Amino acid sequence: MTAGKPPHGREARVSELARKVIAHDWRALAKAITKIENEDTDASALAASLYPHTGHAHIIGVTGPPGSGKSTLVDALTAVIRKDGLSVGIVAVDPSSPFTGGAVLGDRVRMQRHAGDTGVFIRSMAARHTPGGLAPTTRDVIRALDAFGCDVVIVETVGVGQVELEVMKVADTIVVVTVPGLGDSVQTIKAGLLEIADCFVVNMADRPGSALTVADLRAMLTFGGAEERRRRWVPPIIETIAISGVGIDQLWDACQRHRQVLDADELMGRARDRLRDEVIEAVTRGVGAYVTEALSRNGTMDSIVAAVARRELDPKTAARQIIEKHLKTL
Amino acid sequence: MTAGKPPHGREARVSELARKVIAHDWRALAKAITKIENEDTDASALAASLYPHTGHAHIIGVTGPPGSGKSTLVDALTAVIRKDGLSVGIVAVDPSSPFTGGAVLGDRVRMQRHAGDTGVFIRSMAARHTPGGLAPTTRDVIRALDAFGCDVVIVETVGVGQVELEVMKVADTIVVVTVPGLGDSVQTIKAGLLEIADCFVVNMADRPGSALTVADLRAMLTFGGAEERRRRWVPPIIETIAISGVGIDQLWDACQRHRQVLDADELMGRARDRLRDEVIEAVTRGVGAYVTEALSRNGTMDSIVAAVARRELDPKTAARQIIEKHLKTL
Repeated sequence: MTAGKPPHGREARVSELARKVIAHDWRALAKAITKIENEDTDASALAASLYPHTGHAHIIGVTGPPGSGKSTLVDALTAVIRKDGLSVGIVAVDPSSPFTGGAVLGDRVRMQRHAGDTGVFIRSMAARHTPGGLAPTTRDVIRALDAFGCDVVIVETVGVGQVELEVMKVADTIVVVTVPGLGDSVQTIKAGLLEIADCFVVNMADRPGSALTVADLRAMLTFGGAEERRRRWVPPIIETIAISGVGIDQLWDACQRHRQVLDADELMGRARDRLRDEVIEAVTRGVGAYVTEALSRNGTMDSIVAAVARRELDPKTAARQIIEKHLKTL
Repeated sequence: MTAGKPPHGREARVSELARKVIAHDWRALAKAITKIENEDTDASALAASLYPHTGHAHIIGVTGPPGSGKSTLVDALTAVIRKDGLSVGIVAVDPSSPFTGGAVLGDRVRMQRHAGDTGVFIRSMAARHTPGGLAPTTRDVIRALDAFGCDVVIVETVGVGQVELEVMKVADTIVVVTVPGLGDSVQTIKAGLLEIADCFVVNMADRPGSALTVADLRAMLTFGGAEERRRRWVPPIIETIAISGVGIDQLWDACQRHRQVLDADELMGRARDRLRDEVIEAVTRGVGAYVTEALSRNGTMDSIVAAVARRELDPKTAARQIIEKHLKTL
C-alpha cells in the first residue's frame, strides 16, 4: 500500500493546515490563503476542509469608482469595528494591479495603522495570481478568513468593471461609495451597482456638492428601486469624511442593521442563490475542462480547429457539434 | 410543414442580412453588429453566415493605461491608413463604461473627424451589452467588420485588467501605448502586456522623459524578451505625438511590416491557437449550460444546493460529484 502514501501525505498536510486555521493560527491562515490564491494542488482540498467551519462572518463588500477613497473608508470602518471588539479580515481585490502594483502600496499604508493588531488580517489579491478567475478565488479566500474566525470580512474592489461586480456578489452587505464632484457622481455608479447596493456612502462629504449628490442618489432610489429586495430594506445614504472618521459609526451601524433586517430567510435565500451560482460555475468549468481534454487527447480537437481555420465551419457550430456528439447520453 | 415556417423565416432573414453585410451595406452592418452585441436570437446564425467571408482584415489591437492618448492615436492612425486607400473598422471596447459613459463621448469626438468618410466604420462596445462576455462578442463584431470588407480593423481597449488582455488576444498585431511621466511608465505596462506586445508606442513624446521611457522599454525588451515569438520580430518602440500626427506613419509602417514578417506560418499558427481557445470556450459554456439546465429541471440542483447550504458538502466537491455522475459515459 505504499502507492497510497503520497495522497495520504497530502491529506494529512491539508487537514493539519485546516486544523490550524480553524484554531486561529495566523501563520497557517497566511499560508492557506497563499495556497488558495496560487491554486496550489492542495487548494481545493483545503477549501473543502475549511468549508464546514464557515458561515459565521458578516461579509461586507465595498466598491466604487477610482478616487472615491475606498481604502481610507475601509481603514476607518475597520477601526470602528475593532472598537466593538470584533475581528476583521480585509480582502483588497485589485484586478488592475498587474499594471499599477497598487495593491502592494495600499497594503503598506493600511498595515501601518493596524500593525500589531492581531484582530485585523489584511490581504491583497491581484488578478494575475488567480488563473481560475478572481471571483471564485476571492470566495475561497473569504471563507478561509471566516473559518479562521473573523467576525467581519470586508472585500474591497475598485469598481470599474464586470469582474468587480462579480466579486461584490459574494458579500452579505454591499456598500457603494461615491464622492461629490466626480463629474456626474451618481452617473458613475449608475449601471449594475445601483441595483445591488445595500448602502450608499458619499465620501469626502466636506467637498462642495455633497448635498446634491445625496439628493441625486435619493431621487434615483425613489424612481428606480422598486425591486423585491427593496421592500424590506431601503438603502441608506451616508455622508462620510473617512480621513477624519466622520460618519463611519453610522456606516457600521447601517451594515449591522442591514444584516439584522435581512437575517434568517432573506440572507439564507441570497446565500443559497450564491451557492447555486458557484456550483454551476464549478460544473461548467469542470465539464469544459473534461471534454476539451478528452478531445485534445484523441486528436479530435486538432481536426476540428483545422476545419474552422479553413472557414469550413464556424467556431460556435463546431462547439455545438462537439456538445451534441459527446453529451447525447446525458 | 407549416410548423417549419418560423425557423425558415429566421433563416431567410439572417441570410439576407448576412448577404447585405458582405455586399458592403452600411446599414446592414450596423444592424448586424447590434444583433451580435445584444446576443439577439439571430446572433449565432448571423455570425456563422458571416464567418466564411472573414480572414481578410488586418486586426490591430491598441491598448495601454488610461491617459495614454489611445483614442487620439487610433484616430491619427486611421487617417494615415485612409491615405493608403484602405478602409478601417474601429471597435472601441470600454468595459468601464457602465460607470463613465466614456465610450459614447469617445465616439462623438472621433466621429467628427471621420464624419462622412464611408471608409471608416466606428463602433463602441460596453460590457453591459455583452452578457456572454466581452471577448467572444468582440470577436464576432470584428468578424462582421472583416466580412463587410474592412481592410484594417482596429480594436482599442483601456488597458487596466484581465478582460482587456483577453480582448487584445484577438488581434494580429498588438500595439501597447504608454506616455512619459505616468509615474514609472514602463512599470504601468509591465505584466501581461509586455509579453504580448508587437509594437510599443511612447505617445506624447514631446513631454519630458520620453527618451528615458524609450530606453526603459528597450532595456526591458532586451532582458525579458527571449521567447520564441521574439526571434523573428523584435517589437519596435515608436515615439509619437498623436495629436499632431507625429510618428503615425512609422507606426502604420511597423504594423504592416509586422504582418508581413509574421505572414503565412506564424500568423496562421496564432490564428489557429485563437480558434482553438474560442472553440474550447464555446464548448465549456455550452456544456455547462446544458448540464445545469438538465439538473435544474429534475430538481437535482436544488437538493445539492441545500446540502451545500447546510455545510454538508462544499461547492467544489458538489460540482465534482455532478460531473462524475453525469459524464461517466464520456
